[in-house]
Amino acid sequence: MRNSLLVLFTIFSFQIIPYAQDTSQKTDAIIEQLYEKALVDGHAYENLRYLCKEIGPRLTGSPGATSAVDWGQDIMKSYGFDSVWLQPVMVPHWVRGAPEKAKVVGSKRMGDVPLTITALGNSVGTGPFGISAEVVEVEGFQDLKAHGEEKFKGKIVFFNKKMNNAYPRTFMAYSEAGFIRYAGPAEAGMYGAIGTIVRSLGTETDDFPHTGSTSYKLNVPKVPAVAISTKDADMLSQMIEAEGNVRVYLETHCEMHEDKLSYNVVGEMKGTENQEKIIVVGGHLDSWDLAEGAHDDGAGIVQSLEALRLLNEIGYKPKNTLRVVFFMNEENGLRGGKAYAKWAEENNVEHICGIESDAGGFTPRAFSVDAELEIIERMQRWVPHFQPYGLYKIEKSYGGADISPLKNQGVITIGLRPDSQRYFVYHHSALDTFDKVNRRELHLGAASMAALMYMIDSQGL
Amino acid sequence: MRNSLLVLFTIFSFQIIPYAQDTSQKTDAIIEQLYEKALVDGHAYENLRYLCKEIGPRLTGSPGATSAVDWGQDIMKSYGFDSVWLQPVMVPHWVRGAPEKAKVVGSKRMGDVPLTITALGNSVGTGPFGISAEVVEVEGFQDLKAHGEEKFKGKIVFFNKKMNNAYPRTFMAYSEAGFIRYAGPAEAGMYGAIGTIVRSLGTETDDFPHTGSTSYKLNVPKVPAVAISTKDADMLSQMIEAEGNVRVYLETHCEMHEDKLSYNVVGEMKGTENQEKIIVVGGHLDSWDLAEGAHDDGAGIVQSLEALRLLNEIGYKPKNTLRVVFFMNEENGLRGGKAYAKWAEENNVEHICGIESDAGGFTPRAFSVDAELEIIERMQRWVPHFQPYGLYKIEKSYGGADISPLKNQGVITIGLRPDSQRYFVYHHSALDTFDKVNRRELHLGAASMAALMYMIDSQGL
Repeated sequence: MRNSLLVLFTIFSFQIIPYAQDTSQKTDAIIEQLYEKALVDGHAYENLRYLCKEIGPRLTGSPGATSAVDWGQDIMKSYGFDSVWLQPVMVPHWVRGAPEKAKVVGSKRMGDVPLTITALGNSVGTGPFGISAEVVEVEGFQDLKAHGEEKFKGKIVFFNKKMNNAYPRTFMAYSEAGFIRYAGPAEAGMYGAIGTIVRSLGTETDDFPHTGSTSYKLNVPKVPAVAISTKDADMLSQMIEAEGNVRVYLETHCEMHEDKLSYNVVGEMKGTENQEKIIVVGGHLDSWDLAEGAHDDGAGIVQSLEALRLLNEIGYKPKNTLRVVFFMNEENGLRGGKAYAKWAEENNVEHICGIESDAGGFTPRAFSVDAELEIIERMQRWVPHFQPYGLYKIEKSYGGADISPLKNQGVITIGLRPDSQRYFVYHHSALDTFDKVNRRELHLGAASMAALMYMIDSQGL
Repeated sequence: MRNSLLVLFTIFSFQIIPYAQDTSQKTDAIIEQLYEKALVDGHAYENLRYLCKEIGPRLTGSPGATSAVDWGQDIMKSYGFDSVWLQPVMVPHWVRGAPEKAKVVGSKRMGDVPLTITALGNSVGTGPFGISAEVVEVEGFQDLKAHGEEKFKGKIVFFNKKMNNAYPRTFMAYSEAGFIRYAGPAEAGMYGAIGTIVRSLGTETDDFPHTGSTSYKLNVPKVPAVAISTKDADMLSQMIEAEGNVRVYLETHCEMHEDKLSYNVVGEMKGTENQEKIIVVGGHLDSWDLAEGAHDDGAGIVQSLEALRLLNEIGYKPKNTLRVVFFMNEENGLRGGKAYAKWAEENNVEHICGIESDAGGFTPRAFSVDAELEIIERMQRWVPHFQPYGLYKIEKSYGGADISPLKNQGVITIGLRPDSQRYFVYHHSALDTFDKVNRRELHLGAASMAALMYMIDSQGL
């Protein structure tokens, strides 16, 4: 036993281990080069400045979205990718219209009190004469069910579910409370409500309402839906508790128009061995209309682009084709992600994996991988290559929205997971502007994506 | 062999392991409680708002520093600590005086060009008539040595050493370039220079000069010293390259006055078993005068305070005495840290360890421990308790400045290591204001310190 072990050990010592070390050193050297290039003279930050400051908000169907597509195509071409093209997508065209108005009407103690709100994406408007009704506060759907139609008919339902600040990761709280914004107005419509106010999905108590998409159901009345700032949500809740009957006036002018033609923007570095096998990386080009979409998802766009640029810049020749996609319409329809996946299916495109950055341009911490455990465990052996740069975890979890239609075709999906503490201060609100992004944090994320693409391309999944 | 192993295994299985698991679960529950309290209704953020917005800049010796001492004492008392007291410290009293002026004088292509500068802390002023001389650019001391006095006599030496953006951790670049700010002006004085301009220690290219202390030597002429914004450093360097002889006018009105009496502020929760053994936690109460000292080191102050408050709040009864110290004068003298250590030595105070937060109020990532490797390895077994909150590493490294005099007495010192990417955007500049701090990031740091104190107190080092 002892002798045979010794033999084995000798073999491992002089053949396998040194070889593994050589590979590992080469791997580390390439990864270091990617991070160094990104930190010292990366392009993502200045690209993001252009996208935010020169193009600005780019809600699906808006002139800003059209400009963003043009910019996307131009910048990919300027980087000399092997192929740059536009993929047509029919997208929804929701328009906010004239500024919203809202107030408490004739409160006993304070008279009329203005409320800071914003219409939810995809919502119908109230029309120019607005709606006025008593407000009934609930936390969630269980409250609707418990009281039934009688309590809510002709009323404005106020969903006042807070994001749970106790979670160390803010996305857990978003998952929990986000469902109400998405499905609450439709649910309230089933109980006869004529309007809905949803507490903003923000971690802080402040004056900035956070929009986001809501969704109606077939054969259920479409009820106008707005988000209220967290501060005014608290104020309104206190007023209801103190006064009982509180009336609110809401006026929104939003409308859903006919679908429009738009595009995903696609760029590629062709593979030198398996050109037909694709590693796709991306984010979404559209943003909400209230701000510049700096973190959501300008960051993901410029990082995905930068990941390819960095690999190109260091002269890396990929075995497989590396593709970047700027997806259109993640925010209120996911049409870009769906169109890409449909096209891939129809054309038998073989994806090794899809990688997405859509959680803000903050310091990267982890990759979340939606794959078989065996694959994840193999990837976890790569963690030591990333740890010097603060990315310390590869875990089994959700990949991302725009690549979720690929997942349904069996493709492995992977999400970049940056620090989440600040995200829901800015997310979907007027605060999501370029000045909230730090250059180094953004560039570490871009380098992490480049390094992961390199690992997957060179070592397989 | 096999049987005795089996016996051992049985003992471990049924006695030690279950016990360890119970302890571990209790530990996790207490740590979860600390983080949850901090995230849901922590006080640190509102305390920091007060310190920044109501007190503001608090340079040692200034009225702001006096107000900060009063506030520190009041707030510790309001939290019902067992004992709150002031520890006298004689501190340097450096005053910036009237606003600085600087310009390039009569450049061939651009005429007079204003420069954005700020005097370095502890620097002598130029006097009301300023100084005007040719500028000689160098990177470091080796350039002074290489050329000798002839090249620098009567000139203004311009140290244009950049922070190296390639390092994943910004503090590495600060350590490397920071030495020039601290020792460069004295060194230039030895070579006959009449003034020094130091490139600001900032990671970004912008218009905000970063101050910081410099230090003179005995029997070497004290040369006026300023920091120049990174943008103007690049501009000045280009001008020197293009034009050769470039003259600069500098005017600073700073002065070092007589030492003044100030205080460290100290608060305690008495130990229930070993009252005489101390775990001390702290940050520094003084700040530079250019801003509110939000990250440096208002964050460390409110986090240290919060760590004790959280432990108190959950009803934890410490075995050993837990002490918080707001140190005075870290920035330009370290007198508070030195006075505390001297007092401790004279009174045979037994410290278990010193813990410091002075690297910004960003998401916590690690603890750096200055101790024997054996102790660090034992502490590293605690990492799984912290990982759910994003703190993933305990490593051997520097503890901190204010606790470094304790280290010289053999005390174990520990530093909280938050994410460092944004720190040197703000550090020592006008940008270090309250709005740069995120509530959740700050509170995660406070909870991490509380959790570490709990671990050390309950399990020993």
